[in-house]
Amino acid sequence: MTICTRCKRNDAVFARNYSGEKLCKRCFCTTIEERVRKTIAKYDMLQFIDNFMIGVSGGKDSIVLLHILAKLEKAFPNVKFCAGTVDEGIKDYRDEALEIAQDNCKKLGVEHVIVSFKELFGYELDEIVKLTQKNQKKGLTPCSYCGVLRRKALNIMAREAGVNKLVTAHNLDDETQTMLLNILHGDPMRIARSKPVLNMIHPKLIQRVKPMCMVPEKEVVLYAYLKGIEFQCIDCPYAQAALRNDIRDMLSRMEHKHSGTLFTVFNSMEKIQPALENYVKETKLTECKKCGEPTVGDLCRACEMLQEIKVF
Amino acid sequence: MTICTRCKRNDAVFARNYSGEKLCKRCFCTTIEERVRKTIAKYDMLQFIDNFMIGVSGGKDSIVLLHILAKLEKAFPNVKFCAGTVDEGIKDYRDEALEIAQDNCKKLGVEHVIVSFKELFGYELDEIVKLTQKNQKKGLTPCSYCGVLRRKALNIMAREAGVNKLVTAHNLDDETQTMLLNILHGDPMRIARSKPVLNMIHPKLIQRVKPMCMVPEKEVVLYAYLKGIEFQCIDCPYAQAALRNDIRDMLSRMEHKHSGTLFTVFNSMEKIQPALENYVKETKLTECKKCGEPTVGDLCRACEMLQEIKVF
Repeated sequence: MTICTRCKRNDAVFARNYSGEKLCKRCFCTTIEERVRKTIAKYDMLQFIDNFMIGVSGGKDSIVLLHILAKLEKAFPNVKFCAGTVDEGIKDYRDEALEIAQDNCKKLGVEHVIVSFKELFGYELDEIVKLTQKNQKKGLTPCSYCGVLRRKALNIMAREAGVNKLVTAHNLDDETQTMLLNILHGDPMRIARSKPVLNMIHPKLIQRVKPMCMVPEKEVVLYAYLKGIEFQCIDCPYAQAALRNDIRDMLSRMEHKHSGTLFTVFNSMEKIQPALENYVKETKLTECKKCGEPTVGDLCRACEMLQEIKVF
Repeated sequence: MTICTRCKRNDAVFARNYSGEKLCKRCFCTTIEERVRKTIAKYDMLQFIDNFMIGVSGGKDSIVLLHILAKLEKAFPNVKFCAGTVDEGIKDYRDEALEIAQDNCKKLGVEHVIVSFKELFGYELDEIVKLTQKNQKKGLTPCSYCGVLRRKALNIMAREAGVNKLVTAHNLDDETQTMLLNILHGDPMRIARSKPVLNMIHPKLIQRVKPMCMVPEKEVVLYAYLKGIEFQCIDCPYAQAALRNDIRDMLSRMEHKHSGTLFTVFNSMEKIQPALENYVKETKLTECKKCGEPTVGDLCRACEMLQEIKVF
């Protein structure tokens, strides 16, 4: 057995190729918690008096981050934090995830809020998918509807819970995939908007922060496994991320052959973001004529979508 | 047999997936020549009174572009154009390429200039590789030396030939690979410098233009094959482009699954270039204290390298 290069006592269970470390179970978990703590400090994500909500889907990333934040929070008694889940209304999928989210919150003593598409928008995602089948040929997939509505739901949920930050559990792989996806989709100016801390550009928008953006997906999974954390393993039945999957495969191969690739891509993203931000005129947001939520046009994209659905 | 969708007469030999066209031999070749002509016009690459040199290595890209430019030039009697080859001094490789370049120029009636590393710098690349074997562990590969010296040689050759433009045969695949390579190398600001027409930032630097940057590599090869154009097929014995090869594979797979990907990446690159250019402070070039060529420091990188070689 190889000995842990950090504590020099226990047997190593994980070889971190990009750093050369071999880590035992305990040291591995500590380094992940440390990485999250340092990311929060580096980007000034959370302050001592903050009151934040973490978006918890029930998948590995959000459940792991929930556990880590619950642990880190103990050192900061003035920080208040709760969890929030959006129930999109996806049969045989979201119901299981909700239970897992609830169980984990209960175990950790974290207050848990749930909002549903049905109560906010009048439709479950399953209903929307049925009603818009014709539209899917035009490139409007279930994910298009879900993405727009979920972003809106998360913002409303966080604002109504009275928090001043919304924490999401995007990992390093998510962030680097999104960057390349924006390039391969021909929409590279979006890279400016995919930062660890997103600037608030409207008083009704809750600031979003991503404390896990420096943790590779593989290490999130290992953390959950080593800590015996239960999360939802099945994929959403509507998931259709063809191009993202190709990019994931490519990046995995690259990371395998040239370890550290994910971090290098992340660094590249951070280098060009200020240039793109400087260049893009700041979007002026107004309030949606229908629902009052922040938007660029007269109607927010969610209200537009919901109006189209009614026409069918 | 499928009929050509362009002339609606001949049998198609090529299905261009990203446009949906099926093309006969004649129409395919015409569209490639047209693409080059339109790229020249779009980026204002060459004017009617221009006097330019095309860098010809002897590989498929430069030989195909030589043929296309020789054809297009006939319509512009005031345009003068010659070809230039850099002989790096690579045994059993460059000698064959030189012959191919010479044969093609002779056939087309194009004046052909050759300069060698040996006469310009005192060493053949083969000698440099032998002398710097120790350095290769520090990441200075034969390609590092060759790249720096060849860029300098091309510029000197073009300037001494009295031309005002240097045409290179980079194709669409080269350009998109380079973009992703810059991101995966953590050097994304270089993307600003990889444009179809590079701005001159010093009077001694000859402007470079890339009229084939919108032609996919696959179509360059097919053009050569259909026209019976002879080019060098073997790879350079020193070629070590591990990461570039991985990116090439990934982009090929993407293009195969989602046709048009290469063009979309090219468009993304064009969208972010102005932002990066605005952001990067313009480099002030001075003249190298030793050779007088444009450089950012006291000595140009080529003179630095040559000085290091002498020390061994």
